[in-house]
Amino acid sequence: MELVKEYPISKRFPELPLLSAANAKKHPDLIPFAFGHPAKESFDISLLSDSAVSALQLDGPRALQYSGGAGPDHVVNWIQQRSKHVSIIVETQNILVTAGSMQAIDLATRTLTDPGDHVWVEAPTFFGAIRQFSLAEVKISSIPMDQNGLMTDELERKLKEAVKDNAPIPKFIYVMPNYHNPTGVCLSIERRKKLAELAYEYNFYILEDDAYVELSFSGEKLPSIYSFGPKRVIYLSTFSKTIAPGIRMGWALADDEVIIQRMKMLKSDGSTSVFVQEIISHFLADVKFEYHMKRINDLYCARKDAMINAVKECFGEEVAFTEPEGGFFLWLSFPKEVNTSEFASAALSRGVSFIESKFFYVDRAETNHIRLSFTFTNEEDIQKGVKRIAESYYQCKKSIEVLNGV
Amino acid sequence: MELVKEYPISKRFPELPLLSAANAKKHPDLIPFAFGHPAKESFDISLLSDSAVSALQLDGPRALQYSGGAGPDHVVNWIQQRSKHVSIIVETQNILVTAGSMQAIDLATRTLTDPGDHVWVEAPTFFGAIRQFSLAEVKISSIPMDQNGLMTDELERKLKEAVKDNAPIPKFIYVMPNYHNPTGVCLSIERRKKLAELAYEYNFYILEDDAYVELSFSGEKLPSIYSFGPKRVIYLSTFSKTIAPGIRMGWALADDEVIIQRMKMLKSDGSTSVFVQEIISHFLADVKFEYHMKRINDLYCARKDAMINAVKECFGEEVAFTEPEGGFFLWLSFPKEVNTSEFASAALSRGVSFIESKFFYVDRAETNHIRLSFTFTNEEDIQKGVKRIAESYYQCKKSIEVLNGV
Repeated sequence: MELVKEYPISKRFPELPLLSAANAKKHPDLIPFAFGHPAKESFDISLLSDSAVSALQLDGPRALQYSGGAGPDHVVNWIQQRSKHVSIIVETQNILVTAGSMQAIDLATRTLTDPGDHVWVEAPTFFGAIRQFSLAEVKISSIPMDQNGLMTDELERKLKEAVKDNAPIPKFIYVMPNYHNPTGVCLSIERRKKLAELAYEYNFYILEDDAYVELSFSGEKLPSIYSFGPKRVIYLSTFSKTIAPGIRMGWALADDEVIIQRMKMLKSDGSTSVFVQEIISHFLADVKFEYHMKRINDLYCARKDAMINAVKECFGEEVAFTEPEGGFFLWLSFPKEVNTSEFASAALSRGVSFIESKFFYVDRAETNHIRLSFTFTNEEDIQKGVKRIAESYYQCKKSIEVLNGV
Repeated sequence: MELVKEYPISKRFPELPLLSAANAKKHPDLIPFAFGHPAKESFDISLLSDSAVSALQLDGPRALQYSGGAGPDHVVNWIQQRSKHVSIIVETQNILVTAGSMQAIDLATRTLTDPGDHVWVEAPTFFGAIRQFSLAEVKISSIPMDQNGLMTDELERKLKEAVKDNAPIPKFIYVMPNYHNPTGVCLSIERRKKLAELAYEYNFYILEDDAYVELSFSGEKLPSIYSFGPKRVIYLSTFSKTIAPGIRMGWALADDEVIIQRMKMLKSDGSTSVFVQEIISHFLADVKFEYHMKRINDLYCARKDAMINAVKECFGEEVAFTEPEGGFFLWLSFPKEVNTSEFASAALSRGVSFIESKFFYVDRAETNHIRLSFTFTNEEDIQKGVKRIAESYYQCKKSIEVLNGV
């Protein structure tokens, strides 16, 4: 047994980039703008604790089995009702509760595509989604966006071109319509309609990732893309930003029940923890959800304001941004020639983390932006953190100027 | 938008058999021997409830985030210590906590294989595993077993033949060494050694699914296959049979860290719920695990005895079985010419469910056995349920004899 041979594992694993911020934990006093964590103040710990006790004491024997008591049904009913807020009418059997919405992205991708198929995304887009698409061995291309979201004219041009050239049409397009990660912008209502029309015309699906929809500072919501074209949309959302990420609960819904059944078939963790679903069912029954979200959104809006003030103070005209009306992120654009990776590690050493723009582009095309999360950190630390970024940036700029003899 | 085109979803979905027992819920007074559910009496609801409250109140803000407090580390440390009982020495970074052990089977399969690769299983084997292998698009063949588990002589013969014929060697062999599902038998220690040797010699992995290891009525445990060949085994186990299935928590461990990292990469639900891990960490710290398992095993042993007595009483010499020394299942063998599917639905109408043997064979080769779970049902119902099976069986036998003019 001494000699161990070479063993070839699956060829499915692509080279995946490691975020620079993954090393961020090392600093003793780190201000973490890198990751999209909710504020600890957003958690209703006392109600969750009561819910856990109720779930166990009222229906423990069923909540602990493979398939549970009434909890999972209550959760799905809640999702069905809540979906009406974005003009979605859906039957409960068309809703699949998943272990977070990333799992829903994975299941939807493997249900809609085979390796080698094409998927189009927004540029920039969420790096976690790029990661799932890469693992599903699909080919990824991107469509530009502006302050009104995905540029549907550009999309239509590219689709026409593909048809003309006999090139592949995407199996689906991945879109975040509300408080987009990383840019924070919303897709305009005209473009939502246009996108649904194009999906029917060119026969592709839209993977509508609506993780941030409840994080609207004004409380207003636009109708979903799904509402304009239910037969070509898989709609995803999550409790990670509204209740807590640690419960690992999101959902997918689709008008075509076959899609949902196939996603379920790939879901090797079985029903998403019936124990947690039972707890969340009690939580949802007892929470005043509108009030709960208003409290969270007021907190986040104040933090967003603090961040914008700090950015204005520290950077003046040096950076540009679209002020987000919800969500988790501020997207700062530096002058075109800047490569934000050049001061990311200097910033980490000063005790602040962010994510550089290259990670949000499939082709790593744009390097002059950074994504800052404003939700996790209190206002004092936001002030301090932005200052640390500015120090790192200006020091880096100075050394480049010295090097270039400016 | 009126005309919706045909949309081709992924080709990855095989035809999967629907268990007859899936209809079982319809009977108002059903005795469910079909599914491998633990007894409700096995759950320590009061300690789980205390653990949930402690987890939330002592470290709620971290237990609810994407990555948690100390809970996940405690769980992994516990697994590391407990693995010593089956002679496994492993570093904590080589342990991956999964959302149930079925997820671990899925992740391991996709890490080790590409579509078209070969996987060998025991005949019979767990239908859930067959399902995962089919979804991973591998080719499945089987090796016979007897009352000492997988027949390693037969395996060696088949491997030699494959080499001689230049036919494919399996990428891995799936084995349940303890209280095998469905047969209830254990793999002998000599065969464990032999299996590990063959894995090194022929360069395949062993997926050692040890879901039932703690369900030993005597409390004794054999050393794992892993202990004889750590470089060619991925070892899996679960809390589903010891704490509760509803918490959805299992694990995989491997000597090769690359395997674990790749499995993690495919795990699209992120870290298995840190909230639940925090709760289980408190549970494990407070439970008297040996006492807890003894209580469960005493309960199950009594139920197993009740089932065997009922079988003897109702069937006499008509059926054969190996008496299980642990686990969840009794495997009844009828005369060779019997097709147990022929009385499965009659039994369902009489209010008892079981799983017919065809579902446990890749090629559906043997039809004369049934799997009965003895853990979920109390002794009175066990008596009643076995009687219902006997009535269904003898009635079926009689009508066949009438038909054949016997």
